[in-house]
Amino acid sequence: MPTASLTTLYASRADGITGSVIDASTSLLQRQTHDIVRMAMGSPAREAIPSAIFGDLLAELSADCSSVFDYGPTEGDRELRRALLDFLPLHGTRVDPDELLVTSGGMQGLDLVCKLFVDPGDLVTVEAPTYTNGAATISGYEGRMVEIPGDADGMDIDALACVADDEGPPKLIYTIPTFQNPAGTTLSLDRRERLVELAEGWGAVVLEDDPYGLLRFEGEPLPTLRELGAGRVRVIGVRTFSKILAPGLRVGWLEAEPEIVARMIDARQAMDTCTSPPMQRLVARFLARGHLDDHLVALRGEYRRRKAALQEALADELAGLGATWTNPHGGFFLWLDLPPEIETEALFPLALEEGVAFIPGPAFSIGGRFSNALRLAFSAEPPERAREGVRRLARAIQRLRSA
Amino acid sequence: MPTASLTTLYASRADGITGSVIDASTSLLQRQTHDIVRMAMGSPAREAIPSAIFGDLLAELSADCSSVFDYGPTEGDRELRRALLDFLPLHGTRVDPDELLVTSGGMQGLDLVCKLFVDPGDLVTVEAPTYTNGAATISGYEGRMVEIPGDADGMDIDALACVADDEGPPKLIYTIPTFQNPAGTTLSLDRRERLVELAEGWGAVVLEDDPYGLLRFEGEPLPTLRELGAGRVRVIGVRTFSKILAPGLRVGWLEAEPEIVARMIDARQAMDTCTSPPMQRLVARFLARGHLDDHLVALRGEYRRRKAALQEALADELAGLGATWTNPHGGFFLWLDLPPEIETEALFPLALEEGVAFIPGPAFSIGGRFSNALRLAFSAEPPERAREGVRRLARAIQRLRSA
Repeated sequence: MPTASLTTLYASRADGITGSVIDASTSLLQRQTHDIVRMAMGSPAREAIPSAIFGDLLAELSADCSSVFDYGPTEGDRELRRALLDFLPLHGTRVDPDELLVTSGGMQGLDLVCKLFVDPGDLVTVEAPTYTNGAATISGYEGRMVEIPGDADGMDIDALACVADDEGPPKLIYTIPTFQNPAGTTLSLDRRERLVELAEGWGAVVLEDDPYGLLRFEGEPLPTLRELGAGRVRVIGVRTFSKILAPGLRVGWLEAEPEIVARMIDARQAMDTCTSPPMQRLVARFLARGHLDDHLVALRGEYRRRKAALQEALADELAGLGATWTNPHGGFFLWLDLPPEIETEALFPLALEEGVAFIPGPAFSIGGRFSNALRLAFSAEPPERAREGVRRLARAIQRLRSA
Repeated sequence: MPTASLTTLYASRADGITGSVIDASTSLLQRQTHDIVRMAMGSPAREAIPSAIFGDLLAELSADCSSVFDYGPTEGDRELRRALLDFLPLHGTRVDPDELLVTSGGMQGLDLVCKLFVDPGDLVTVEAPTYTNGAATISGYEGRMVEIPGDADGMDIDALACVADDEGPPKLIYTIPTFQNPAGTTLSLDRRERLVELAEGWGAVVLEDDPYGLLRFEGEPLPTLRELGAGRVRVIGVRTFSKILAPGLRVGWLEAEPEIVARMIDARQAMDTCTSPPMQRLVARFLARGHLDDHLVALRGEYRRRKAALQEALADELAGLGATWTNPHGGFFLWLDLPPEIETEALFPLALEEGVAFIPGPAFSIGGRFSNALRLAFSAEPPERAREGVRRLARAIQRLRSA
């Protein structure tokens, strides 16, 4: 019965938002009928979904229904695997065919890693803050989580080393090193190297959750932990098309040693058999026709603009309050720290009333930390809407302060 | 690390087919370049995939890309839920909205039930023979499985009662009561009632795996265990569009008490977030336009013909050998018992050489029973091909006997 998830994670905190913070936020959000600036969820820009190309590819698929609607191979559609094996090296990743597994979104990649490597009581380090559903998955397999704090350069590796001194070496290190969810920060090269060294010394498995890596819009690319750890550490890279193409595809992939991939294929057969072949084929042809590179260029430009607009608005509206925020070089999210007395869970319903949604900081911590912080997604809304969202947020903060 | 699956189930049997029987069969099968009559896997007739309607619906979806390719609700696409809630009552099933969960195929339904209800060491009864991946899922959660034999009327309920006397009441009863996979048999009404009574007395959960229930082509409909157990027993009905529409959709559904559905929604958020919305929407519109009823009528007729042809061929080619077989009233499979000295795992490679594929009996038993039995799927191949397949099977048996 390993199915804790968010509800359990947050069950101990009675804060007016019942159940999990994100569930409650989503459910409250869905009940709103007035205009809301959507900065809560990590949805890509709707305008960025390549509808015209998808339309053509769907029409193509319809000519080929009988084969593509049958069961597909558990390891992934052959066309998609081939397209990925061609695409990835152009983006600095060398993957052998038997190191590649197609998954039903990145979320399933996290689930598979935990299914294989997390037994009840196993020590797993997570970042603070961390991705809520990642922590929920680890919790579901009854891993014993310890939070590692971070700063603008990502996870604090000294703190990671200290945990091992205190509690013994972790079995699994869960990290989102690049354009972290929710903080927006990126683990520096030096820290990446130290993390890999520590993991090597401990024999720990590293779960590199990387949904945003291809969405760098500033700064220099860094090697992935999987590249740095090659031949030394078992790093499993979990990737997805959800953020770079469309979440509704439910197609992701995972890079790991062949022995791990083989075990995961076995596990998948008792989970969901395979990822929807028509959706895989759609992605395969998008890649094979060379659309993804152009698409990524367009996305990076758009998200750079959206982030800049959000930061500008924050400077205009919230800097005076003593708010500070991170400076992501890619991805979807920015982390906002408000003055200590501002409880973002109390702020949330007021913000909804004003017409803006975010996720309160405590949703991203197994210890319920970050009470005065929140995550803002700049991905879903265009610049002018983000500015309006921040104005609404500022009004909600004023109301909370004068309450 | 609960990820036993087939490899573990069969690891103890060194029989020339390494790994699991089904994996090995599939992999051997994929390496064949000559013509093979496909009676191994439970694939629907390719000719039965409604390509023209799917083509139209895919074209419609392409006009609506931006919304349908975003994340969808974990409980299922609204259109699909509405269509199912309209469709199911016409087929004798009353379901409230909060009793319904859309899943990524029936397999995920099995996984969710086991995730919630199977803890290491829990007693779970399975049928002998049973669905391989169902047993693999239970094994993955480290359930302690006990096999319950059956006959032409399905599971032997006296044997079920005996198990409880010997080992205490089971926590979960896993059954495929209707057109069973692999046996093709159907649990009689009397046994259904007794099963529900026993489960009620024990407080056991019943997992009613029902991929084929809508494909009855002979005999009178029977109430599902979920209907019989309503208000008395926690019966979870796991259903799928894989067999009645197309496996590649990866869309199924599950019927359970609201409290169970709510917990499963939580679990899904840490598993795969949601089922692909475009595939759900395709199914929704197929249902909403009333296509499924016509389609089911056509499928039933076709599968009735295919079964009859297979049985005729078996009577012509194998009755003389002392072979016997079941008489399914629906579904995809028929179970063939050969004389005791014929080991179907040894027969398998010879049959492939002759150009016919099946699954050897031991693949369907956690104890490796049924060494002289095999499963034949009559779903995938048209009548004349089934006849040719049986002729090839007869030749393989002759070769094995004279070896």
